Amino acid sequence: MGLLETIDSPADLKKLPVSDLPALAEEIRELIVRVVSETGGHLASSLGAVELAIAIHYVFDVPNDRVIWDVGHQSYAHKILTGRREQFSTLRQHGGLSGFTKRSESPFDSFSTGHSGTSISASLGFLCAKHQRNDPSKVVAVIGDGSMTAGLAYEGLNQAGDRHKDKNLIVILNENDMSISQNVGALSSFLSRTLSATYLQDWRKELGELLRSLPGIGDDVYQFAKRSEESFKTFVTPGMLFEAFNLEYFGPINGHKIKQLVNILQNIREIREPVLLHVTTTKGKGYEPAERDPAYFHGVGAFEITTGSKRPDAAPCPSTYTQVFGRTMVELAEKDPAIVAVTAAMPEGTGLAEFAQRFPDRFYDVGIAEQHGVTFAAGMAADGLRPVVAIYSTFLQRSYDQIIHDVCLESLPVTFAIDRAGIVGEDGPTHHGLFDLSYLRSMPNMTIMAPADENELRRMLVTAISHNGPAAVRYPRGKGTGAALADPLLPVSIGKAKILTKGGDILILAIGRTVCEAMAARQQLETEGISATVVNCRFVKPLDEELICDLARAIPRILTVEDSMLAGGFSSAVLECLNDHRVTGVTVKRLGIGDTFVEHGSQEILRAKYAIDARAIVVAAKELMA
Amino acid sequence: MGLLETIDSPADLKKLPVSDLPALAEEIRELIVRVVSETGGHLASSLGAVELAIAIHYVFDVPNDRVIWDVGHQSYAHKILTGRREQFSTLRQHGGLSGFTKRSESPFDSFSTGHSGTSISASLGFLCAKHQRNDPSKVVAVIGDGSMTAGLAYEGLNQAGDRHKDKNLIVILNENDMSISQNVGALSSFLSRTLSATYLQDWRKELGELLRSLPGIGDDVYQFAKRSEESFKTFVTPGMLFEAFNLEYFGPINGHKIKQLVNILQNIREIREPVLLHVTTTKGKGYEPAERDPAYFHGVGAFEITTGSKRPDAAPCPSTYTQVFGRTMVELAEKDPAIVAVTAAMPEGTGLAEFAQRFPDRFYDVGIAEQHGVTFAAGMAADGLRPVVAIYSTFLQRSYDQIIHDVCLESLPVTFAIDRAGIVGEDGPTHHGLFDLSYLRSMPNMTIMAPADENELRRMLVTAISHNGPAAVRYPRGKGTGAALADPLLPVSIGKAKILTKGGDILILAIGRTVCEAMAARQQLETEGISATVVNCRFVKPLDEELICDLARAIPRILTVEDSMLAGGFSSAVLECLNDHRVTGVTVKRLGIGDTFVEHGSQEILRAKYAIDARAIVVAAKELMA
Repeated sequence: MGLLETIDSPADLKKLPVSDLPALAEEIRELIVRVVSETGGHLASSLGAVELAIAIHYVFDVPNDRVIWDVGHQSYAHKILTGRREQFSTLRQHGGLSGFTKRSESPFDSFSTGHSGTSISASLGFLCAKHQRNDPSKVVAVIGDGSMTAGLAYEGLNQAGDRHKDKNLIVILNENDMSISQNVGALSSFLSRTLSATYLQDWRKELGELLRSLPGIGDDVYQFAKRSEESFKTFVTPGMLFEAFNLEYFGPINGHKIKQLVNILQNIREIREPVLLHVTTTKGKGYEPAERDPAYFHGVGAFEITTGSKRPDAAPCPSTYTQVFGRTMVELAEKDPAIVAVTAAMPEGTGLAEFAQRFPDRFYDVGIAEQHGVTFAAGMAADGLRPVVAIYSTFLQRSYDQIIHDVCLESLPVTFAIDRAGIVGEDGPTHHGLFDLSYLRSMPNMTIMAPADENELRRMLVTAISHNGPAAVRYPRGKGTGAALADPLLPVSIGKAKILTKGGDILILAIGRTVCEAMAARQQLETEGISATVVNCRFVKPLDEELICDLARAIPRILTVEDSMLAGGFSSAVLECLNDHRVTGVTVKRLGIGDTFVEHGSQEILRAKYAIDARAIVVAAKELMA
Repeated sequence: MGLLETIDSPADLKKLPVSDLPALAEEIRELIVRVVSETGGHLASSLGAVELAIAIHYVFDVPNDRVIWDVGHQSYAHKILTGRREQFSTLRQHGGLSGFTKRSESPFDSFSTGHSGTSISASLGFLCAKHQRNDPSKVVAVIGDGSMTAGLAYEGLNQAGDRHKDKNLIVILNENDMSISQNVGALSSFLSRTLSATYLQDWRKELGELLRSLPGIGDDVYQFAKRSEESFKTFVTPGMLFEAFNLEYFGPINGHKIKQLVNILQNIREIREPVLLHVTTTKGKGYEPAERDPAYFHGVGAFEITTGSKRPDAAPCPSTYTQVFGRTMVELAEKDPAIVAVTAAMPEGTGLAEFAQRFPDRFYDVGIAEQHGVTFAAGMAADGLRPVVAIYSTFLQRSYDQIIHDVCLESLPVTFAIDRAGIVGEDGPTHHGLFDLSYLRSMPNMTIMAPADENELRRMLVTAISHNGPAAVRYPRGKGTGAALADPLLPVSIGKAKILTKGGDILILAIGRTVCEAMAARQQLETEGISATVVNCRFVKPLDEELICDLARAIPRILTVEDSMLAGGFSSAVLECLNDHRVTGVTVKRLGIGDTFVEHGSQEILRAKYAIDARAIVVAAKELMA
């Protein structure tokens, strides 16, 4: 009988001697690899944090003490140790365990997470609440070095060292030399200059020499300003950086040596100061294919355990929107030297890896820093470049303010390539891209497109880049429709929709991915004697108002379909258009996401459940006819 | 004849000998004080940056070299030196100069600004564009220590030190020990530990002693981890911090000693590395009342130059919404210990100064860090507190993602007190609060209210705080209606609108500040024989669907009025409601802000121009009747 089978809660864990913990870690790794090879998931980061999870639950009294896992995708071991071992096989399945921490799932999940950099801020919130009731227990925030590039994390850190009441904060900086892809930024290269005993000895020597060479202070401002710092700059260490934020710094220590981890956490637990513990870990630890290619195994689909390779698809496989985007970017950049690309820690995820290789000088990975990425692009656009900002729909939410003020206010030509729009699937509510149409639509000067297939994605990308103002192209996660890619690559007309089929009974206004659902529904409806005009609207803004109003007057039974929030989204734009043009006597039925968050599950299940697939369109059309 | 009259461009400035520059600074100060005493404006920060602006234009070749003023409210001297001296008296007036830098206003304004922390990111964008065309000129970002608390600034800094191509970046950190109010955060207290020659001498001694005491490296992890850092931590300086980001650090130097500034900038200009120059300045420098109370003179209305005191109002003066909010918070907090308040660098601006004094332990100023402020509040709400987050509408845009994911997704009881909603006036497009209704409305679990007067603000605040989920109360800048404040203080019913007057000709659905305009219009309409039902809708979400549909069926001529974007806003919610409830045969005319940014000017001028005042309602009503 294994050790893991005896662990139904952290209390069970505490009964084990420390010497058993490394074996327990192995069992947990095996379970994680086994399940994720079936379900897909965030394998590499969860494997890297197994010992951390064990040590934290061994030392602290969670949930009395709180532990907040930044992003939450590294929390699989935490889930297994906190009563969810049996359910773990349901990971990321509809109705099963979430791939992130989630308050409603377990009292051991203190905070629901999904986006980077929230853990320190949320921890400070819990500490303030504890402070109000004189509760001296601890809050542990576990944050990767990748998440540390998020401005939000820095904002939290800045408060952490400031307030005396946060004596019970422990930040564990989990440094694995990468976030999702290669890590970027000054901070990252700085963190990797870790200390060793030899290094420390060298320092002493060098420092002494430098001190002896320090002359008196002269009068020249420049010389003074320079000299006052120069002698010390080689001695800056991660510790000093965090000490600058008034955190007590410990480390770096090896995050896979579980006895040491337990030892230092036990010591740290007693300190009445905000503490930062710096641990180094290996992404994918213990599963060789993941250690070898942690970027691929960051968020991975089902795979063969023995080789780590992707399971073969049953069906033949059209390119994904992401792949088509990536290839088109290379093609366009070859012709136009003004095109540059910006990603926020997602060169592979956004399909820009080839672009990065071909045009290293025109490719910018800004780290998990979406706010900065957008303002940075605005600066480039203000000086003649044509930046394409490739950020997933859900993460672009982080740059809402920068899109309005730094891009739209001056109508700068920045293209937003918004991947993962609509329902994304197993990653769930923090990763669906359902808000973009609503939030982009109220921004003046913004053009918003959504392609019906991958060929249209190419055409819209050209359209956006050549447009002299901000333009967004939002497209779904996953495979395209298999549409042929037209050559030459021609733009679409801005603000023009396209009638796909004509029929007098019902008018279906579809946008983006829902166009193919509408076409499938049309076929079904035809067999039932209902003829539909299907319009690929292409633009949410500017809407093709003339066409829509003309058609609406002719066919007053209207169905709108969108894979986004109904409130303020595409259908809302259609209603505004019909109203403001005084088109009366029409009935509009709106299919889209109502006023609710969408849980995790396969795209297919969710599209059916939220009534935005072909079947739902057929049902709604028949209701309209009745 | 003064020096200033000879300066029509930076080229004229360069003709002066350095010895004339202090006198020029005095003339500029005098002009700034004279104009701002009439127009109002950001006096304190602009007075603090006079020498900086002169020195930058004296040394650099702007706009060939670029200068980007973070936020832009300290750029008055820059404006005066770059051909806008004559126009300067039109500052912040409708049709006159903007109070911030603005691309369309002058080629010397490289980037349009208004929100904190964008300058480094935008500068990097310009540098990349220069790099693409092998242009070796410089980009200077001038950023205050307050703006440095913004995560965006940190994200930019992190990239600045990372990329070798940014050799031409100069960041000038303007430290004035405060942003708008007292500065907060670990970084701030750290920056103020400035160096002096004596201090440096002391260091050498102390350092030597500590080095001698460094023992060999032991085996115990805890001891090792601790010791490896401890000896150095006292030596952390601002320089080290920025060196950690791979920036060459210079300073701190006195930012009012203009010769020294010119000297060091001339030297720095030649360096082929990203540089950070740390200058210290005094907010309000040279105008005694502003030096004494820089928070008051941060953004100030017209004042008497001799005393600095506010000009007496002609009319008797009802309390502002801000004041009523602040007093109500104190009143509620006295009864409910769970109430805590969060502000982002705006304790005075949001009216929380008294709360802060009365309940220092329940008041959190997080600095210019709106993202963090919201996630921090979510943490508090997750552990039983009732946080009220008071952030201006425009700045709350920075927390869009955090509101969705950290607050709404788990439906945590966070109250958003959204001051400066609607048209704010002279601060212009970056400060109007026009997007909030659109962007909040698509967030599930969010309740959105807007009070018609200050008494209703009080009632809505109680309603929001006692509601077990996220709730937003958005209210305008400036004076209330003079409504009596009812006692006892009772909540309003969630989702219930209030019929104010009954009339059969026309239905006016108003929200928030537009309710008083609607009531004024009703009176005028009555004299013209048109009777109106006026509804104070109170809630944008949940909308009082039943009432609105019933009234619409009875009175099919409908006018909606809102001081927010039409796209996705209040009227859009009304259209969605009428459509989804199949209310047909109605005509809806929507008054609000169309698809455009609103320029600066007085609230009165702008409300008339954008047709959301009583007069516009009367005109629209008569059109509807025709």
